[in-house]
Amino acid sequence: MKDYIIKNEWKIIEEGYVPEHNQITESLLSLGNGKMGQRANFEETYSGPTLQGSYIAGVYYPDKTRVGWWKNGYPEYFAKVLNSCNWIGINVIVDGESLDIAKVKEIHSFRRELDMKKGLLSRSMDVTLRNDARLEINSQRFVSMHNDELGVINFNIRSINYNGPITVESYLDFDIVNQDSNYDENFWNIEKTEAENNSKYVQAATKKTNFIVGAAMENRIILDDKSITNSSILTVHSSKSIETFNLNINEGSKVSISKFAGITSSMNYNATELKANSLQIVKKAANYTFEELLSNHTRAWSDIWEMCDIKIEGDVSAQQAIRFNIFQLYQTYTGQDDRLNIGPKGFTGEKYGGSTYWDTEAYCLPFYLSTADEEVAKNLLIYRYKQLDKAIENAEKLGFSCGAALYPMVTMTGEECHNEWEITFEEIHRNGAIAYAIFDYIRYTGDKSYLAEYGLEVLVAISRFWSQRVNWSSKREQYVMLGVTGPNEYENNVNNNWYTNYIATWCLKYTIEALEFVEKEHSDQFNKLIEKMDYASGETKKWKHIIDNMYYPNDEELGIYLQQDNFLDKELMPVSDLDEKHRPINQNWSWDRILRSCFIKQADVLQGFYFFEDHFDEEQHKKNYEFYEPITVHESSLSPCVHGILASKLGMEDKAYEMYLRTARLDLDDYNNDTEDGCHITSMAGTWLAIIKGFGGQRLIEGKLSFSPNLPSQWNSLSFKIKFRKNLLEVNIEKGKTEIVNLTGPALEILLDGSKINLPANNNT
Amino acid sequence: MKDYIIKNEWKIIEEGYVPEHNQITESLLSLGNGKMGQRANFEETYSGPTLQGSYIAGVYYPDKTRVGWWKNGYPEYFAKVLNSCNWIGINVIVDGESLDIAKVKEIHSFRRELDMKKGLLSRSMDVTLRNDARLEINSQRFVSMHNDELGVINFNIRSINYNGPITVESYLDFDIVNQDSNYDENFWNIEKTEAENNSKYVQAATKKTNFIVGAAMENRIILDDKSITNSSILTVHSSKSIETFNLNINEGSKVSISKFAGITSSMNYNATELKANSLQIVKKAANYTFEELLSNHTRAWSDIWEMCDIKIEGDVSAQQAIRFNIFQLYQTYTGQDDRLNIGPKGFTGEKYGGSTYWDTEAYCLPFYLSTADEEVAKNLLIYRYKQLDKAIENAEKLGFSCGAALYPMVTMTGEECHNEWEITFEEIHRNGAIAYAIFDYIRYTGDKSYLAEYGLEVLVAISRFWSQRVNWSSKREQYVMLGVTGPNEYENNVNNNWYTNYIATWCLKYTIEALEFVEKEHSDQFNKLIEKMDYASGETKKWKHIIDNMYYPNDEELGIYLQQDNFLDKELMPVSDLDEKHRPINQNWSWDRILRSCFIKQADVLQGFYFFEDHFDEEQHKKNYEFYEPITVHESSLSPCVHGILASKLGMEDKAYEMYLRTARLDLDDYNNDTEDGCHITSMAGTWLAIIKGFGGQRLIEGKLSFSPNLPSQWNSLSFKIKFRKNLLEVNIEKGKTEIVNLTGPALEILLDGSKINLPANNNT
Repeated sequence: MKDYIIKNEWKIIEEGYVPEHNQITESLLSLGNGKMGQRANFEETYSGPTLQGSYIAGVYYPDKTRVGWWKNGYPEYFAKVLNSCNWIGINVIVDGESLDIAKVKEIHSFRRELDMKKGLLSRSMDVTLRNDARLEINSQRFVSMHNDELGVINFNIRSINYNGPITVESYLDFDIVNQDSNYDENFWNIEKTEAENNSKYVQAATKKTNFIVGAAMENRIILDDKSITNSSILTVHSSKSIETFNLNINEGSKVSISKFAGITSSMNYNATELKANSLQIVKKAANYTFEELLSNHTRAWSDIWEMCDIKIEGDVSAQQAIRFNIFQLYQTYTGQDDRLNIGPKGFTGEKYGGSTYWDTEAYCLPFYLSTADEEVAKNLLIYRYKQLDKAIENAEKLGFSCGAALYPMVTMTGEECHNEWEITFEEIHRNGAIAYAIFDYIRYTGDKSYLAEYGLEVLVAISRFWSQRVNWSSKREQYVMLGVTGPNEYENNVNNNWYTNYIATWCLKYTIEALEFVEKEHSDQFNKLIEKMDYASGETKKWKHIIDNMYYPNDEELGIYLQQDNFLDKELMPVSDLDEKHRPINQNWSWDRILRSCFIKQADVLQGFYFFEDHFDEEQHKKNYEFYEPITVHESSLSPCVHGILASKLGMEDKAYEMYLRTARLDLDDYNNDTEDGCHITSMAGTWLAIIKGFGGQRLIEGKLSFSPNLPSQWNSLSFKIKFRKNLLEVNIEKGKTEIVNLTGPALEILLDGSKINLPANNNT
Repeated sequence: MKDYIIKNEWKIIEEGYVPEHNQITESLLSLGNGKMGQRANFEETYSGPTLQGSYIAGVYYPDKTRVGWWKNGYPEYFAKVLNSCNWIGINVIVDGESLDIAKVKEIHSFRRELDMKKGLLSRSMDVTLRNDARLEINSQRFVSMHNDELGVINFNIRSINYNGPITVESYLDFDIVNQDSNYDENFWNIEKTEAENNSKYVQAATKKTNFIVGAAMENRIILDDKSITNSSILTVHSSKSIETFNLNINEGSKVSISKFAGITSSMNYNATELKANSLQIVKKAANYTFEELLSNHTRAWSDIWEMCDIKIEGDVSAQQAIRFNIFQLYQTYTGQDDRLNIGPKGFTGEKYGGSTYWDTEAYCLPFYLSTADEEVAKNLLIYRYKQLDKAIENAEKLGFSCGAALYPMVTMTGEECHNEWEITFEEIHRNGAIAYAIFDYIRYTGDKSYLAEYGLEVLVAISRFWSQRVNWSSKREQYVMLGVTGPNEYENNVNNNWYTNYIATWCLKYTIEALEFVEKEHSDQFNKLIEKMDYASGETKKWKHIIDNMYYPNDEELGIYLQQDNFLDKELMPVSDLDEKHRPINQNWSWDRILRSCFIKQADVLQGFYFFEDHFDEEQHKKNYEFYEPITVHESSLSPCVHGILASKLGMEDKAYEMYLRTARLDLDDYNNDTEDGCHITSMAGTWLAIIKGFGGQRLIEGKLSFSPNLPSQWNSLSFKIKFRKNLLEVNIEKGKTEIVNLTGPALEILLDGSKINLPANNNT
């Protein structure tokens, strides 16, 4: 855990240069716009610890699956998120000495900040180089939300004491190696490297996948308010396109470089059009000032914040954290492209190949449902609908048949791209979350026609999977589900994971309901689907038998559900008895020790209680929470939020607040000692859930939006906006007082602490 | 399964060239002498399917462990068996056309045979090349058992119809790539390539491990009985040392090449001595004729066969198979170097990194105990004794302490070098087999002093491991062992694997006995050991508590032990109900499907019955055998032998014979469709066990050698030799009649079908 980020309501601020913090700050201050992203790397040379990273949504490399002993059914590849063209590079050389903060003689000041309101990264520093030249640097950059193929940098150098030559090299470089490459392999084939007046351009294609990315730049340089034109030297150096300015400066001189980068990819254009498009983007941008472009970008952010901001009074730390989480989520996914999804590291690092995990359905969907137009959440659902055929193929590879689908654990395109048997083959509860998301979307939006149009096919395919995956135990005379990994990945290949068994049965029930609904309300479509799905009415008979005869492990004495068979054979001890030096256990214990310990990575039984809250009474909630929470190490970023919400519900205010901070400041405070690899993007939606569902007590009760606020004592007030069907509401919670305003939309009946409240219509948008 | 090998009592014969069989034949006809080995690759150019392989004992490459998500405690490397210098190469070019059987116009005849009595590989073929030149080739080669650094080839070319130039290139080549390299990486750095009159030599060093291997050659060529001297051209081509002979031949001419290769490694010499030693070996060898060298080699084989041959009358197929198994075992391990062990593929392929598995203790040890001098088996034990410190380190990495040892699953040097968590971390029963081997060695040899000298330290360290590995289940009020993989690797991370629980408790009991014995009989040594091991007498108190309170899963109704907790939740069906197209399941089913099925890869509960036969009564044997055998797919080469022995014991003659053939002809008939990767060397000891312990009914009963023969009806007689302490016995079994002869050694009392028999002394060796 670390504590160096300065608390501020709208900004993430680092003061002072600490090499050991650099990679963490690079992650935290990452920029993105849903289409591309950039870690907060220095523009200039930097020889200290760094993870250079520029990423383009959807661009990946299918790395050969390599395992000790090959297991049948393994995917051919593991998807690597690819580091792409470095477009930020601006080297500064003063009298032969490169500006490199890792090698300067003295640092007089250093500050970086990310202004989340504006989406702007700024840096100021004042350093004396080894040759005694003292320079002040002020740089700003953004990745435009207005034009999502544009990145802009404003880089200013002021000489404090130096008189003499200075060289400024602005470049594009495609000689990029992923940190996670095994043999320093390069994943790009360079196709074009040009440095001409009309074309400062590089282009490369990914090996195997042949994604093509082109990057163009324009540079504008001003020395002491005087524009320098036609004096640059254009050179090409292998994969680099370089524009060099050789200037002479004096004490007090200021050199100001504006750099415009246009980045396009074959995801969106024909390969032959990339160059022209990239060049056009930068040429057009170069007609504007940095400030003008920034203002367009800031306006786009302002529109986003208008829908999704959360205000917390009395707790800057909490305020900063929730905005940071919301900001990073929208930097990662804006919902405009249904081929994209929410990568667990977004554009902040390379770790975890693939873009889509069950995180999207289980955690992110409610966030987008409540903070964006309905289409955004729907796009996330349709993403899976479009991949149904591949999910059926995937299940076939594992021996399932007759249209049973198993969605991949990790995917870029619908194909499985993760290769650990205990995850790939066994963490099948993901199928349940995908069905649950359909249920969640429909109950929230009321869009039941989604079932007929898309949802039913997915549900039937998932139910077919479950019905084939269980088996009848003659010993128990019940259905069992053997060899699974639950949400708690610190158990592998267990039998009868309660959560998986429960969500499987729920899927079967919900699918039966959905079939009945579509048959009744959309009979034409139903008949078409029956044929398309080759559906036999006898199928539900087996499903009903499973529903009626599923085994759920439990312990009557303790009054709890058991995470899996024989869980109580473990040596039980609370996490609080664990010596701190063993934590996090995943960095200190071998896998077998983790597996046989009682310690839980993330909510498992409690994840089920979170999803199916109204299936269980208060007493059950309490007993299960009290049994499982103390043995949970929360080493998944997805864990604290669920516990926070349940703690809020159970009135455990301190625990709820502790869990909130842990989820909200996970990256800012580097709780799990891994922020340097990138931020935990998907779990950021959990922070939002912890506030809205936890402290706000937001639920849907019989189709009505409901709130039961429970403010942490540290907070004076909590205020948030929430989109619900045709309405945009503002909820203002103070101690003992909650005000709900209908900002736009028709009259609406909601529940507040169980009482009905009528909000009058408000169409003054 | 295939059936193309011609049955013969002493030979493995292939008639006719079938490209699809080539890699299988290459494995089957491999040569070795315990120090080096060579697959039966063609000497000349071959463009068909082949796995080129020359191997040097102990030489490996530590390949970087690469897994999806790194798990704490994984070893740094996976040991790759390295393909080494190609020393057999002899190219033949006739008028510009290379001899290459994959490209000839016509094959008139083709035959390969391995004479196991002599250890000689021969090939004869008669082919017409694409340029119509017809040649007859006769080649023979062996890897000398007399001088284990020498390989010799006799290669004869006869022109049937061709008149004109012929080029013969004999070479050494170190440009070798392993088939299992991920990126066609080369694992060798070439150090020397020389082709001079006095030095036809190549030398290379393995990357990372820096094993250095040097290979020298001499060639002698005779054209129509006339020696060709001083007419060769010596060239070096990158990693190749080539001696070229350009000759002119006529119809009927015969060219005869004798090639001598001397291969030395830094395992046995200083790097600076390799060249001189290799050259000396070939120069010395070249003073002899091929026949003279062969006769030395054959004599060495004759000495081996003298001790270990088994004769079966009335069943050529069974006869061929057992000799093949014995032959390959002695080609792999001769017991002369205690740094070496028995790699699962020996010198016949690259698969399975590392040389040492639990196979050595569980299967191979009894073979060497009964067919070689005591020292050979003792060397195998001392190998583990010398690696005890590393086994303790290995356990420490996994969180164990106070001198607890976990021997590696796979090793070259004592370090773990396999990286699948379910195997590396969880297949811990291997520790039991290592303890059992000490017990087995001592009961067989009577050498109880081994305990004081070496055994006790190993036993105590293993017992410490078990006592830390179990945990107390408050629920059961018994000790349990969670998260293990048993011998049946088609189950992973199971709880309370009966075999593992049972052998763990047995280890504790045996260690307590051993402590008491050493304390009483070797008290000085005991006191030294107490100190060395930092042994506290209280330790055994916990061990005894575990012994008295261990949980063993069972089912009273069925009267069986359960392979693991909840085994009966599985859908039970016999293997015979499985559609053939699903078999072998490990090539057709995904891993999760295998895991949750009831199908067993190899004996697990029955492995326990095999080791601890006298702990269980006949009824228990029967019930457990009848429950488990029908659900066992025997996809481990180590499975059929154990079942064969138990079937013999239970009087299931047909089953015993079926199991025998399956283990004995596993490679010859390519049962598991994988002989092309190499032969299953360690399981070959299982074939020997199936005969001696199965059909011969050999046991030790109260220190007495005992036989209860049970001949398959297909056999007229079975005759074998067995070494027991100071005696070498010959056992001749015919139907209803068994004769046991004391070939050498003092008078001995043995048991035959339960009756005591006194064999008089025979010192006429």
